Amino acid sequence: MSDRLVVHHIPVCPFSQRLEILLALRGQEHAVDFRVVDITKPRDPALLAKTRGTTALPVLEASDGTILKESLVILRYLDEVLEGGPLRRTDPREHAVESMLIAPEGPFTTAGYLFVLNQDPERRQEHRDKLLRLYRDIDGFLTEHSPVGPYLFDDFGLAEAVFTPMFKRFWFLTYYEDFELPDEDGYQRVGAWQKACMAHPATGQVSEEEIVKLYYDYALGAGNGALVDGRKVSSFAFDPKWQDRPWPPRDKYAGTASDAELGLVG
Amino acid sequence: MSDRLVVHHIPVCPFSQRLEILLALRGQEHAVDFRVVDITKPRDPALLAKTRGTTALPVLEASDGTILKESLVILRYLDEVLEGGPLRRTDPREHAVESMLIAPEGPFTTAGYLFVLNQDPERRQEHRDKLLRLYRDIDGFLTEHSPVGPYLFDDFGLAEAVFTPMFKRFWFLTYYEDFELPDEDGYQRVGAWQKACMAHPATGQVSEEEIVKLYYDYALGAGNGALVDGRKVSSFAFDPKWQDRPWPPRDKYAGTASDAELGLVG
Repeated sequence: MSDRLVVHHIPVCPFSQRLEILLALRGQEHAVDFRVVDITKPRDPALLAKTRGTTALPVLEASDGTILKESLVILRYLDEVLEGGPLRRTDPREHAVESMLIAPEGPFTTAGYLFVLNQDPERRQEHRDKLLRLYRDIDGFLTEHSPVGPYLFDDFGLAEAVFTPMFKRFWFLTYYEDFELPDEDGYQRVGAWQKACMAHPATGQVSEEEIVKLYYDYALGAGNGALVDGRKVSSFAFDPKWQDRPWPPRDKYAGTASDAELGLVG
Repeated sequence: MSDRLVVHHIPVCPFSQRLEILLALRGQEHAVDFRVVDITKPRDPALLAKTRGTTALPVLEASDGTILKESLVILRYLDEVLEGGPLRRTDPREHAVESMLIAPEGPFTTAGYLFVLNQDPERRQEHRDKLLRLYRDIDGFLTEHSPVGPYLFDDFGLAEAVFTPMFKRFWFLTYYEDFELPDEDGYQRVGAWQKACMAHPATGQVSEEEIVKLYYDYALGAGNGALVDGRKVSSFAFDPKWQDRPWPPRDKYAGTASDAELGLVG
């Protein structure tokens, strides 16, 4: 097992789930040794030294000690080295098409996270509009390149592995912002894609309940394990387990519930 | 020639030069039919229809009509389909390393362009500091992965093809902002890389004089062929040719020279 790949990750992190989906599709869940980083605690200095001070995760350690960062870089690397046929389209033109769909994943992710983090009720509509515009862009792309669907090509592929973790994180928008895709022109194709992606059996690493409970502090404006004012335990804490906690209040603009109300006191 | 690839591009555009460098390295300059788009004129409706309304260039038309956008997507596509060995590292770990180096090309490009476009003398230092920080990040990366150099691996490769056009555009910063990499720790490795990239014989598609003359309007805050107040001809005009015009004034904060002074009146 000495040449097993090591990935340092945050459980429930969407960037890590991309890798987990790939491993599930290949039946290679044990090819990677995942090491959990608790973002509610100071970072291990040994890991910080390996990453030259950056804290973004996941990080892959290759067997020769090379450190790989950036989830898309790691995803494509694993896709090349894991046993079994690649997830990427082997045809260069088709691969270029899936890469074009992947290209705006950064702005898409950012728009969703800024929306859940938003604390100004006056700016809710602006955040909603921005995210919906990005959904419409994807709708237009899929309508051009894959009008029938539901996937971009004949099956769940690389672009689906990239976007599905974000679609599942956006459960926090459904819960805390009543966000839903409108049932109208401009969203039908992307809506069908999102639905098929989220229903795929290789993407079940997280549940809606888990996302809603863990990301409660994001909805209060505190990301990456930061503490909300007046609280002593992060909603990202591993203990008590999310399964043992009650669902948090939906009204994010009403201020925080207490640690006790959130079931965060063991 | 019916299956020749068509690329719609702006001459002197750095995103297009990435493709031209790849073609030069492969000795395949004639594999692509470049069609010139004049950004000082309204966009051809037929091309706009093909791109579903987006105006970013370059755009590649594959022989089956598929439209490919995003210079990195097109670059990787051409790298896969052109004759000859690929520019990308064939070893997956090495390819992941070059992909990590490429990942911040967007912020790097943006920082350089916002610096040349800046019109507020009070903000020059802020722009300089931001760009220098990005150079130091690259310096750290190269020092870790390729301490001797000058390239990331043994020869000019994919990351070099991505960054060299930006290094050459930044001649506009040398000329209009007196920008130079400091001769001190934190810049030596990236400085050596930049120098080797810019000297490589496959990267001679543009000259310093050409960049300085064509991007004069960028230095006055007008990008993408937009007109500077008080002027009637863009510095990006094809006619009169840049070779027949004088060098523009260096002091971008003193206001525009006239069309006549710039040699833009035929």
